[in-house]
Amino acid sequence: MKKVAFIGLGHMGSPMAQNLIKAGYSLQVYDLVPEAVQSLEQAGALACESALDAAEGAELVITMLPASEHSKSVYLGQADQPGLLAQLTSRPLLIDCSTIAPDVSREIAANAAELGFAMLDAPVSGGTAGAIAGTLTFIVGGEASDLEQALPVLQAMGKNILHAGAAGAGQAAKVCNNMLLAIHMIGTCEALQLGANLGLDPTVLSDIMLKSSGRNWSLELYNPQPGVMENVPASRDYQGGFAVNLMNKDLGLSQEAAQQSHSSTPLGALAKALYQMQAKQGKGSLDFSSIMQLFVTQPTV
Amino acid sequence: MKKVAFIGLGHMGSPMAQNLIKAGYSLQVYDLVPEAVQSLEQAGALACESALDAAEGAELVITMLPASEHSKSVYLGQADQPGLLAQLTSRPLLIDCSTIAPDVSREIAANAAELGFAMLDAPVSGGTAGAIAGTLTFIVGGEASDLEQALPVLQAMGKNILHAGAAGAGQAAKVCNNMLLAIHMIGTCEALQLGANLGLDPTVLSDIMLKSSGRNWSLELYNPQPGVMENVPASRDYQGGFAVNLMNKDLGLSQEAAQQSHSSTPLGALAKALYQMQAKQGKGSLDFSSIMQLFVTQPTV
Amino acid sequence: MKKVAFIGLGHMGSPMAQNLIKAGYSLQVYDLVPEAVQSLEQAGALACESALDAAEGAELVITMLPASEHSKSVYLGQADQPGLLAQLTSRPLLIDCSTIAPDVSREIAANAAELGFAMLDAPVSGGTAGAIAGTLTFIVGGEASDLEQALPVLQAMGKNILHAGAAGAGQAAKVCNNMLLAIHMIGTCEALQLGANLGLDPTVLSDIMLKSSGRNWSLELYNPQPGVMENVPASRDYQGGFAVNLMNKDLGLSQEAAQQSHSSTPLGALAKALYQMQAKQGKGSLDFSSIMQLFVTQPTV
Amino acid sequence: MKKVAFIGLGHMGSPMAQNLIKAGYSLQVYDLVPEAVQSLEQAGALACESALDAAEGAELVITMLPASEHSKSVYLGQADQPGLLAQLTSRPLLIDCSTIAPDVSREIAANAAELGFAMLDAPVSGGTAGAIAGTLTFIVGGEASDLEQALPVLQAMGKNILHAGAAGAGQAAKVCNNMLLAIHMIGTCEALQLGANLGLDPTVLSDIMLKSSGRNWSLELYNPQPGVMENVPASRDYQGGFAVNLMNKDLGLSQEAAQQSHSSTPLGALAKALYQMQAKQGKGSLDFSSIMQLFVTQPTV
Repeated sequence: MKKVAFIGLGHMGSPMAQNLIKAGYSLQVYDLVPEAVQSLEQAGALACESALDAAEGAELVITMLPASEHSKSVYLGQADQPGLLAQLTSRPLLIDCSTIAPDVSREIAANAAELGFAMLDAPVSGGTAGAIAGTLTFIVGGEASDLEQALPVLQAMGKNILHAGAAGAGQAAKVCNNMLLAIHMIGTCEALQLGANLGLDPTVLSDIMLKSSGRNWSLELYNPQPGVMENVPASRDYQGGFAVNLMNKDLGLSQEAAQQSHSSTPLGALAKALYQMQAKQGKGSLDFSSIMQLFVTQPTV
Repeated sequence: MKKVAFIGLGHMGSPMAQNLIKAGYSLQVYDLVPEAVQSLEQAGALACESALDAAEGAELVITMLPASEHSKSVYLGQADQPGLLAQLTSRPLLIDCSTIAPDVSREIAANAAELGFAMLDAPVSGGTAGAIAGTLTFIVGGEASDLEQALPVLQAMGKNILHAGAAGAGQAAKVCNNMLLAIHMIGTCEALQLGANLGLDPTVLSDIMLKSSGRNWSLELYNPQPGVMENVPASRDYQGGFAVNLMNKDLGLSQEAAQQSHSSTPLGALAKALYQMQAKQGKGSLDFSSIMQLFVTQPTV
Repeated sequence: MKKVAFIGLGHMGSPMAQNLIKAGYSLQVYDLVPEAVQSLEQAGALACESALDAAEGAELVITMLPASEHSKSVYLGQADQPGLLAQLTSRPLLIDCSTIAPDVSREIAANAAELGFAMLDAPVSGGTAGAIAGTLTFIVGGEASDLEQALPVLQAMGKNILHAGAAGAGQAAKVCNNMLLAIHMIGTCEALQLGANLGLDPTVLSDIMLKSSGRNWSLELYNPQPGVMENVPASRDYQGGFAVNLMNKDLGLSQEAAQQSHSSTPLGALAKALYQMQAKQGKGSLDFSSIMQLFVTQPTV
Repeated sequence: MKKVAFIGLGHMGSPMAQNLIKAGYSLQVYDLVPEAVQSLEQAGALACESALDAAEGAELVITMLPASEHSKSVYLGQADQPGLLAQLTSRPLLIDCSTIAPDVSREIAANAAELGFAMLDAPVSGGTAGAIAGTLTFIVGGEASDLEQALPVLQAMGKNILHAGAAGAGQAAKVCNNMLLAIHMIGTCEALQLGANLGLDPTVLSDIMLKSSGRNWSLELYNPQPGVMENVPASRDYQGGFAVNLMNKDLGLSQEAAQQSHSSTPLGALAKALYQMQAKQGKGSLDFSSIMQLFVTQPTV
């Protein structure tokens, strides 16, 4: 399985594709932005003029797109333009690495299956840093046997490949995980600021909570209080990292999923409202740990 | 420092005192409940008739009481009855292991200091199981030199002794930690139930989130979904563990502290409301991971 | 404009159609459920075999359907079946009285306009009681001139006809209103239960808040505390009225709309989570004022 | 009952005392701030040197103090200084118009009763404007017969005199009312901003919701959207009115009361966190309808 189509060459897709080239795969690439295609061409990929063009003849097709509507459009088509599923003459293994709504993912997979395609949903976490370093985590939905086949390709781009269940399960597990991440990040901010307001040193408090039952990933690897940890966004004015806008999007997916599945998620719903508030304050491009700013004392107007 | 007074012999205090006896300390004990005193007497402690009686002559005084008003009453007295501080002729090191409001703790410590007492606040976590096993965590506020002196005694009852800062800091750090614990416990419940409603296997989803950014103490050691982990309250009908009523009390302390320190804690405030709701549903004596029940589908009435 | 098509004869649509017949309109009706059609036929309507059948030849078409997907399907069609817009040879005025997502409403209206149809969105409030009594409130989106034309027909079914703005504005205003209704209903429950727990008489407290700044529609016309008002659902075991499931649906629409419009609605989001929780407790068919039950003390398990 | 003592001459107390002078009462006044006393002296009051001095010989004593601790200190005394109850030789009717914690109010009243005093708690609403105009609302706790006696005096300062129940009930009803007010104010802001983001005109939407089930006091008399209503704080940059800091204080009392009475108030708790957030943003002295600003889009940083 050496011939791979890669469709969607943005901040994430581009370095992921680069890693596949480095690993010796033969790449056929496409993106709406010509510069993105050219950059991969220079790295050795075959530039294509359309998604179909790229996918035709490949043994494996990877898509890395911004949102549900883009995945739907590429695979299922829209209004007057059929999608890949209807047009492809071959039957490559399809892997959608986009982060999209679980039910859209399942809908695409069901259509694919009907037409004889094997398909995986494989949203990633790890950000652009992980995409460049090839250390992404893939959370995968689909058949175990299809995943087995895709494993070498995924391993060329990531470190952890986790199987969540049947079609759509990768997306479902990711929205659950990211909702929980947002909750403990905000909770960590609240606890650290409460502690500071009570006179505690944030580094000492962080250390105590890490050794106690407050421990969580945000506190351990991503402390939101400037100055407590080096090399985290909080210590560089919340630049870089995982943007508020992206967390806000993922929380939107989690709330959509909660609604469709009749789930009550009070903290998740409130986390969404707070990230939306932070985005509305003009802070959408800051790292998601900047939610700390909602709790810090500002000067009186 | 071998002569220790122990005041407050409830579910936590009693096994803590037992461990001190086992470690070779000579104990003078008091509790309002005669049976509690007798049980320690049989283990070798000297039964006393009042808190003052127990404390007089001891080198170190440990109190383990239910709430702020009890600590205040024992140390500062009430209406027509003076407290330990006013009555003690000697100057033992005082350690209040009760979980109480940080500002009450600071008030008692300030009074103690004025009268020449050294004092530590040292609330614990680890529950009755930790108290029995001698594996409690102590979060300590007060002077480092006083803590150093108290260390052997604390180590006879616990495993982790963490210094949070000056007087009251132990209480402050504990309310921060437990607020964060409540938040990620509820968040974990929401995420697991959302996942289940989306068709995911709770064990698989738990495993994925543990390897991802959703990781937290609740998920790691205290999974709230029945059947995912052995030996946790969720797998024995939420019996044992850390009661909803106790978490509700600690969240009350965190909200009081938030109010006094002008801190905004939206998730913390909501966590308090949800634990209070669970308590009102008649579930106050279940383990705090039973908050899961708020999110599970119940049969139609 | 005497020939009216009425499509969707459920709990709301059926009595609305009856009122049109009483007002002298000539009705052509359709519903998927044959019994619903027969019942209108007996009242003098012309029974039709399809939505198209009913709409063809009418001067005005009214639809009253359960949710976004049904409106979309009827007007825009689906997969292999074209909708009314594509099939109708005449150009009646279209009025969608369904409560659906504002963006779906705008999408349908845009399609209609392109094909030369005038269209209004006119979701109602007032429940089945209002539908029967002909006292509904219509919140209308679309051109003022089209509304003017539709006025007599709407007045035959309702009392208040409110113009919210352009296409989709009726739906938008309704989701805003119902979100606010849910918030003050829950707030009223919290305040009344807090008062009761503080020893206040709920009738006295209700009366005081009605004369003070706590006043709101829920308190005034729909007191959620059993026994305070007669003739409200709270005083008949929360039977009848506006179901938890319907409020939950409307709050879902408000949260979808908030997400699409990048709006932060913390109380609205929490209201949705609490109504979803009440529905999960098996109380979905009770009146929405039964949310009171989340706050009342239950016996200990 | 013509001789009245008035203790506490701040923004509220001062104009209230002025109105009593205008109504022909003979006033004995005291405040910690000499200028406040002088100003009343010029209006005809007798300036006194202490609370006791003012109260001694009066038939009725009115206190208007900032918070629980001040009422406690004036009536019950502190550390080394006895309060009015212990020192007064006469037995005037006592009326505490301060807004304080219901349980503190009850504690003071119980002490008063034991010593043979009749006492009312009578917190007000209506702000400084109502205090000046003599149109305050008094929410009164205590015996009906005592209220009857106090009525003429209260009517000289206010328009609505509402009896909530026994001692402390005035305070209890006020915290319930103001919690509900905060909830529907925030809810109104969320609904109006959601509507605006969906393209609705705020004036049209306000009008529609006023005629529908979203109706509430905030929308009716205090629209938080600048420009919709004249003569409200929103239309003068949120100046004047009822400050965020005061609402934040009242919500603090409501949350304390909720905790002591084991009440779950999720929206109330979240309202408190949001007002605290607004205060932390340096907006504490703006009117409480400025909470709107949390939801408005700000320019990107």
